[in-house]
Amino acid sequence: MKVVDLNCDMGESFGAYRLGRDAEILPYVTSVNIACGFHAGDAGTMRTTVKLALEQAVGIGAHPGLQDLIGFGRRRMDISPQEAYDLVVYQIGALWGFVRSEGGAMQHVKAHGELYNMAAVNPGLAEAVAEAVYKVDPGLILLGLAGSELIRAGERIGLRTASEVFSDRTYQSSGSLTPRRQPDALITDDGEAVRQVIRMVQEGKVHSRQGTDVGIQADTVCIHGDGAHALEFARTIHEALQQAGIAVQSIGRTLSANPEER
Amino acid sequence: MKVVDLNCDMGESFGAYRLGRDAEILPYVTSVNIACGFHAGDAGTMRTTVKLALEQAVGIGAHPGLQDLIGFGRRRMDISPQEAYDLVVYQIGALWGFVRSEGGAMQHVKAHGELYNMAAVNPGLAEAVAEAVYKVDPGLILLGLAGSELIRAGERIGLRTASEVFSDRTYQSSGSLTPRRQPDALITDDGEAVRQVIRMVQEGKVHSRQGTDVGIQADTVCIHGDGAHALEFARTIHEALQQAGIAVQSIGRTLSANPEER
Amino acid sequence: MKVVDLNCDMGESFGAYRLGRDAEILPYVTSVNIACGFHAGDAGTMRTTVKLALEQAVGIGAHPGLQDLIGFGRRRMDISPQEAYDLVVYQIGALWGFVRSEGGAMQHVKAHGELYNMAAVNPGLAEAVAEAVYKVDPGLILLGLAGSELIRAGERIGLRTASEVFSDRTYQSSGSLTPRRQPDALITDDGEAVRQVIRMVQEGKVHSRQGTDVGIQADTVCIHGDGAHALEFARTIHEALQQAGIAVQSIGRTLSANPEER
Amino acid sequence: MKVVDLNCDMGESFGAYRLGRDAEILPYVTSVNIACGFHAGDAGTMRTTVKLALEQAVGIGAHPGLQDLIGFGRRRMDISPQEAYDLVVYQIGALWGFVRSEGGAMQHVKAHGELYNMAAVNPGLAEAVAEAVYKVDPGLILLGLAGSELIRAGERIGLRTASEVFSDRTYQSSGSLTPRRQPDALITDDGEAVRQVIRMVQEGKVHSRQGTDVGIQADTVCIHGDGAHALEFARTIHEALQQAGIAVQSIGRTLSANPEER
Repeated sequence: MKVVDLNCDMGESFGAYRLGRDAEILPYVTSVNIACGFHAGDAGTMRTTVKLALEQAVGIGAHPGLQDLIGFGRRRMDISPQEAYDLVVYQIGALWGFVRSEGGAMQHVKAHGELYNMAAVNPGLAEAVAEAVYKVDPGLILLGLAGSELIRAGERIGLRTASEVFSDRTYQSSGSLTPRRQPDALITDDGEAVRQVIRMVQEGKVHSRQGTDVGIQADTVCIHGDGAHALEFARTIHEALQQAGIAVQSIGRTLSANPEER
Repeated sequence: MKVVDLNCDMGESFGAYRLGRDAEILPYVTSVNIACGFHAGDAGTMRTTVKLALEQAVGIGAHPGLQDLIGFGRRRMDISPQEAYDLVVYQIGALWGFVRSEGGAMQHVKAHGELYNMAAVNPGLAEAVAEAVYKVDPGLILLGLAGSELIRAGERIGLRTASEVFSDRTYQSSGSLTPRRQPDALITDDGEAVRQVIRMVQEGKVHSRQGTDVGIQADTVCIHGDGAHALEFARTIHEALQQAGIAVQSIGRTLSANPEER
Repeated sequence: MKVVDLNCDMGESFGAYRLGRDAEILPYVTSVNIACGFHAGDAGTMRTTVKLALEQAVGIGAHPGLQDLIGFGRRRMDISPQEAYDLVVYQIGALWGFVRSEGGAMQHVKAHGELYNMAAVNPGLAEAVAEAVYKVDPGLILLGLAGSELIRAGERIGLRTASEVFSDRTYQSSGSLTPRRQPDALITDDGEAVRQVIRMVQEGKVHSRQGTDVGIQADTVCIHGDGAHALEFARTIHEALQQAGIAVQSIGRTLSANPEER
Repeated sequence: MKVVDLNCDMGESFGAYRLGRDAEILPYVTSVNIACGFHAGDAGTMRTTVKLALEQAVGIGAHPGLQDLIGFGRRRMDISPQEAYDLVVYQIGALWGFVRSEGGAMQHVKAHGELYNMAAVNPGLAEAVAEAVYKVDPGLILLGLAGSELIRAGERIGLRTASEVFSDRTYQSSGSLTPRRQPDALITDDGEAVRQVIRMVQEGKVHSRQGTDVGIQADTVCIHGDGAHALEFARTIHEALQQAGIAVQSIGRTLSANPEER
């Protein structure tokens, strides 16, 4: 039976500022990436988000980002591999404090925003992020863009990895995402988005903008957590996957059940 | 044989800013309290300080402080017990990331600056700090002012505690420190400072400003890490204690060797 | 003819975080207090808020707060008068940059949150805040709690002041606000709130919880900017004041028209 | 008579962290660039540095930087022109608060670190920085790398500009600085450094690494403020320039004396 994980960013509130509809979207996802205070989130939000995630029994992941609260970690910063390593270790540790104190376990790490983007294409940063995760806990799963440098670095270092795909983005024949500035980068039709994901999971293929099929590993799907439509889409894709005979479960459960498959 | 721990704050540099003479003072102390990025310190400094501490085989402690970098965690902030709990869990976790990734173990937690002061006298904050430490790891040692609310809260919750004394401060007949604003609050003579510590360790007593002896538990002595005289004094007290037949070793080693004694 | 100013906090968004319904509430107020980046707000938000305020021709004020973004400037911090002076000068200056670059003029300064509260009762902090405002620009109006130390300090130093009253808070026979922890501290009935303000403006009196009337100076009324009811109440009180024959206009216009009256 | 300005970064301390030897180097420079709290500096440091500069009667400049305290504003961040504009307006304003409250006047603006570097080559950022300065105060002098996009943008918008040259860097035949990663990028011999500056000021030329002379505008020379040698070199170049018959005075004085010359 085919299986897939649905992951969503959470815990992005900060002090008096509220962001995201965490409690509402939780029933439709199987893993959550919790902000760790650098690009978003704060200590209190981390605690309540970890609690919420444990109550819903979803996989808990650290979501380390660039130290740019005002830019939400979305602005490229020229950081060295050493700086990337350090900020990932720090943020995994900070979240671990709450996971441990709430009696849970951490499942995975997913870099946020521009750190995610940079680690996908920059081998030095990818190596640094993967090493940070490995050295804190080699049992953690490294989540990264399917086909990226980060996934390669994670496998090389000995981590279990989870390849992430997008439902609302189109792909190139090279297997990479169509850059957002191009006109056909986004898939706005929910039906088409769902069909793309189902095919990626069932056949390991995606139809590229160039008309050819490309092989793709689809372990987990990125679900957005903001806005009314995001909530609606999370419900839709969750149901569609199940109706297509695909099991929706956390990547941690899948990898534990089939350790040799990977 | 009598035994005592010498502890010192470390890792207080931040980005381009250098503070403290960590490498020089390390040979004379047995435990270090590493800043965790809220009142001082940053991710890179935490990593290098943890490495340095492991090389010297001193006990490693998290040194959580108030989130006030510009005030170095020394300005009183009205935080709730919940906020205190959250910032302690976060900062212990962050340091744990580096201790774990460097292959070490965390020995203790010591609150910094005004958080230390508030937790010494405020039962609600003391309870919150002790609970944070306990829930992250019940094996951690809670370091606090001798005779303080924090030590009481730590014992109540089931933590091993380490009572801290000061060589350069005078004591009241109540066992509390003479407030700094009083004229005779500080001991500026090194010989007198050393004698006070030796007597606290050997006899469990300190001569108060009021002329009476007061009972005091002296598990660890606070050693300052800044300035040329601090370095000189660290060397002096370390030697004087050994000459007095007192073993100078980390609190973790002492408590592990004599678990039932406490 | 009696006259009053209605003031509201604005520009409290930060990066990706949105807060407040600035554009909607602007038509009902005559002065705005713009956050300056310490407790809320950021450079981009300050620019757009200044523009919005200039378009609506309301009086623009700097709204300096404690440097505690995560606590929204609402947690008491023990800052020295010198620190208070410095953070007020810095934040007035920062906002002045945008007011000047947009071709406007700054009307007033109102401290935010706990800085407002502390400066209302602590003579040293009141003096420091008033001096900061005066030294940056003696033409600025200092807005503070009616009857507070801050108003006294402002008058002593030679600033024009604006005494602020609250529609939704009850008063003591001493003229001070009933502390929030007391059961009858809040006025929840809109009609009662409006009547209290009208009487304060028309008669300079407020009926205290103790049953006696107290004299009060009501130059400006604090209008809340968050939530649907706040918007509704702003409209209500604006209309009610006009129907009662009270002119609603910015404090700057009032003081310029009647310079000798104050 | 030829004339030149010597400028130096100042006020880079932050809270408990001390940086720079401001008071010692002040006698040898004629303009200072004061950090504004984003990459370095804080409100109290700004106040004391402005006071110090006024006592020494040097030209005072705002030194806005990227909002990256931990990276000291030296790490490239992908900010938009609008973001650059906003952070420059904010920081000029903040410093203006202290200049105004101390009874002084602001002379110039010099971007810091990577913001300086980016505005030197990126026309969009150069335009944004120049516009920010102009809109806050068209009387301010814009200091930038000689021959840079920023100088061009400043002239286009109508600002007076000051072209900065370096004594310790070599130049290319294109007029640009030799990149630091190249082996002959730095001039380590003080005599050679001094001669390069004197020739730039007297003849408007610099000998490039390629062996040809290049025209260069030398209005102000960057003097480093950190380290014992920096102090020594500041004294050396100051004396050497005067002995060569070159007047060392602030750019503001020079431009005011000869308004039409530029």
